[in-house]
Amino acid sequence: MKIQLLLTGNELMSGHTVDSNSAMIAQQLGAKGYNIARKVTVGDDRVKLLEEMQLQSQASEVLIINGGLGPTADDLTAQILSELTGQAIEENAIAKQHLIEWCERHKLKLNEANLKQAMLPTGIEIIPNPVGSAVGFFIHHNHCLIICTPGIPSELKSMMKQTIVDLICDQFPNNKQPSTLRFQTFGIGESTLQQLVNNQLVDWPEEVELGFRAGMPLLEIKLSIQDSKHTQLQQDCYQHLYRLISDYIVGSDSTNLAKAVIQLLNQQHSRLTTAESCTGGLIASAITENAGASSVFEAGFVTYSNAIKQNIIGVDKMILQTQGAVSEAVVIAMANGAMARSGADYAIAVSGVAGPDGGSAQKPVGTVWIAWGSRDKLKACKLRLNASRKWFQQMVMAISLDLIRRELLGIEKEPRYLSRYSE
Amino acid sequence: MKIQLLLTGNELMSGHTVDSNSAMIAQQLGAKGYNIARKVTVGDDRVKLLEEMQLQSQASEVLIINGGLGPTADDLTAQILSELTGQAIEENAIAKQHLIEWCERHKLKLNEANLKQAMLPTGIEIIPNPVGSAVGFFIHHNHCLIICTPGIPSELKSMMKQTIVDLICDQFPNNKQPSTLRFQTFGIGESTLQQLVNNQLVDWPEEVELGFRAGMPLLEIKLSIQDSKHTQLQQDCYQHLYRLISDYIVGSDSTNLAKAVIQLLNQQHSRLTTAESCTGGLIASAITENAGASSVFEAGFVTYSNAIKQNIIGVDKMILQTQGAVSEAVVIAMANGAMARSGADYAIAVSGVAGPDGGSAQKPVGTVWIAWGSRDKLKACKLRLNASRKWFQQMVMAISLDLIRRELLGIEKEPRYLSRYSE
Repeated sequence: MKIQLLLTGNELMSGHTVDSNSAMIAQQLGAKGYNIARKVTVGDDRVKLLEEMQLQSQASEVLIINGGLGPTADDLTAQILSELTGQAIEENAIAKQHLIEWCERHKLKLNEANLKQAMLPTGIEIIPNPVGSAVGFFIHHNHCLIICTPGIPSELKSMMKQTIVDLICDQFPNNKQPSTLRFQTFGIGESTLQQLVNNQLVDWPEEVELGFRAGMPLLEIKLSIQDSKHTQLQQDCYQHLYRLISDYIVGSDSTNLAKAVIQLLNQQHSRLTTAESCTGGLIASAITENAGASSVFEAGFVTYSNAIKQNIIGVDKMILQTQGAVSEAVVIAMANGAMARSGADYAIAVSGVAGPDGGSAQKPVGTVWIAWGSRDKLKACKLRLNASRKWFQQMVMAISLDLIRRELLGIEKEPRYLSRYSE
Repeated sequence: MKIQLLLTGNELMSGHTVDSNSAMIAQQLGAKGYNIARKVTVGDDRVKLLEEMQLQSQASEVLIINGGLGPTADDLTAQILSELTGQAIEENAIAKQHLIEWCERHKLKLNEANLKQAMLPTGIEIIPNPVGSAVGFFIHHNHCLIICTPGIPSELKSMMKQTIVDLICDQFPNNKQPSTLRFQTFGIGESTLQQLVNNQLVDWPEEVELGFRAGMPLLEIKLSIQDSKHTQLQQDCYQHLYRLISDYIVGSDSTNLAKAVIQLLNQQHSRLTTAESCTGGLIASAITENAGASSVFEAGFVTYSNAIKQNIIGVDKMILQTQGAVSEAVVIAMANGAMARSGADYAIAVSGVAGPDGGSAQKPVGTVWIAWGSRDKLKACKLRLNASRKWFQQMVMAISLDLIRRELLGIEKEPRYLSRYSE
């Protein structure tokens, strides 16, 4: 069974947009044992689109077309599909009803441009779009199942999950039951991990594929099997890996560092506060983007200037003058001040030079002091992270959350990154 | 002159890797007036690769092949190019010398796997790789210039800049000088804008292409011309658009809402503070991710609980009890408290129900009160944003920054989104 992908959009050809849709489609279908054989990308061009649709629908059992369903004149998919199949364009009642409801929900007036999205070939079946205005649709032509999908990633993703994967599974059943066990790590690199496996797990079974996906800042580790009869092997591999790197494992599948910290704080009925200089609210924001944060996080302080460090969280003026804002004494005082003001049990405090300006010979751009822990047990470290401002802030946020995670778990072993990034 | 792109790699087909190379190639060539007509992606498969190379080299003047130059057995590009052209594989002296030097520089021993990267078809010419171990190469076949490039983005990028763009310009000179004028807007949608143009700018010249790129939360508007002789038309179109939507224009090319706000505050020698409940630090973080934020932003408060709203920024207990935390009186008190504590001239304060829990009949999930302005002129509005927690927080952040931007600019006209999202 051959699946092809046809991506359309001038923004894909000009390089203005990087196509992440095809990777997402491939991953979702791959998880069910279906592979994409080939993908072709062309601009919003009538002649090219018709030619590609013709060739690909003749040469495959499934053709997924992505893009060209929008309201503007350069969105051509429905029109070209009509030319390919000989099915006239008409107003589709389900698509129109969807548009009416979508506009109501978004308090918009249904205009002519929008209505174009309901003008579809006869004979198609609608694929609901739970997110956006453009419905998807499919039709059989030349023994090929042609599926038309919108280009906006969030819309495509929910439509894949809700309808399209099932549609393909129903029409082309296979008996494979591939499965992937995923978990998230922080502070260990892909090549280090591969080396560990090569050296220490020499009997690694070939039925279990070890894969990585570098998120920022987490590294996702995947253990994939093509058949459910290898589930035990997959579990064994996980246990082996767990023994090697347990302290770097943040959690399963969809976790993140902040979620892990929130869960641990909840278990210990404790609360955390933050005092941020160089990260400017990013740590608080990473925590509060997770539902349920309010049970463990009540207050955060963004103390960007020295005056505010004094006035709002009571950092001693003398310390600031003698040690400078980027110093161990200041982050310890920030952490203590934030706990005193907020009544929280744990604190993270950071002060550093995010750059691009503000560095000095003693404290170059990329220098940061982090304090973390509880009232009776505060630790601090100095790191040097050579990176852009944005990456620096992201790394300080992630390292701070990981340090408090390790503290809450009582992990004594020092993570590799502390020595790697210390001067 | 037709340019095609052939991308190869199992990791591209499985969705393990998102292809950013083709976008980069297109951008670099696009800046010189060359467009990519079509791109095809296949896995590391002999039959498919040969077939694609045959078809594409017959149908285009330039074929850029990306990937498959690595040291492992699944890297097939040189082998298949040899089959296509009938040129035997031999050890290429320049490529070998490059490998020897590369290994020396990286303190590695030159092994057999590496040496494979010097086994290339006769008749090719080498494209230097200043970064990695695999050189690129090109050959003329069937009146097509075939260029083979490595898949690692940083290597490809420097080779494009140093050699490949010039190679194409030399062999296929053109006189075009395309240019694109880009600017960022907030609060106006693609279809609304297209409708405005259709209705009010009926004489829009076809030489100027109107394009959009939806970022979150900004919408980028692009006015592209293919030839510098249309620069005046492009400027005219910009002026027409400016007259229609000036208050929605945040700034040029690489700006964002926070940057625009920072610039305005700098001009007015004023400082801003934030008091955030439901956004939990996201607004402060959006401001401080920009270099130079410290001159206008000294303090931010994340006041997630009622107790903290009282203790840290002095919101009256009675107001909290009688009006509830999500109320006009509370966001006004938060804004005033934050200005009093920090000494700032302007404030943003937000309190809302980000969800998924915590909603009520009176204040359902998605409800938010925003206060913004200066000590003598605080405004407040209530909005209802139906969205996921993450999108809700992003939208509240963006709207808050846009409201203060409009305030700083003295724009009296109310933005459309206020009535659209008000209840």
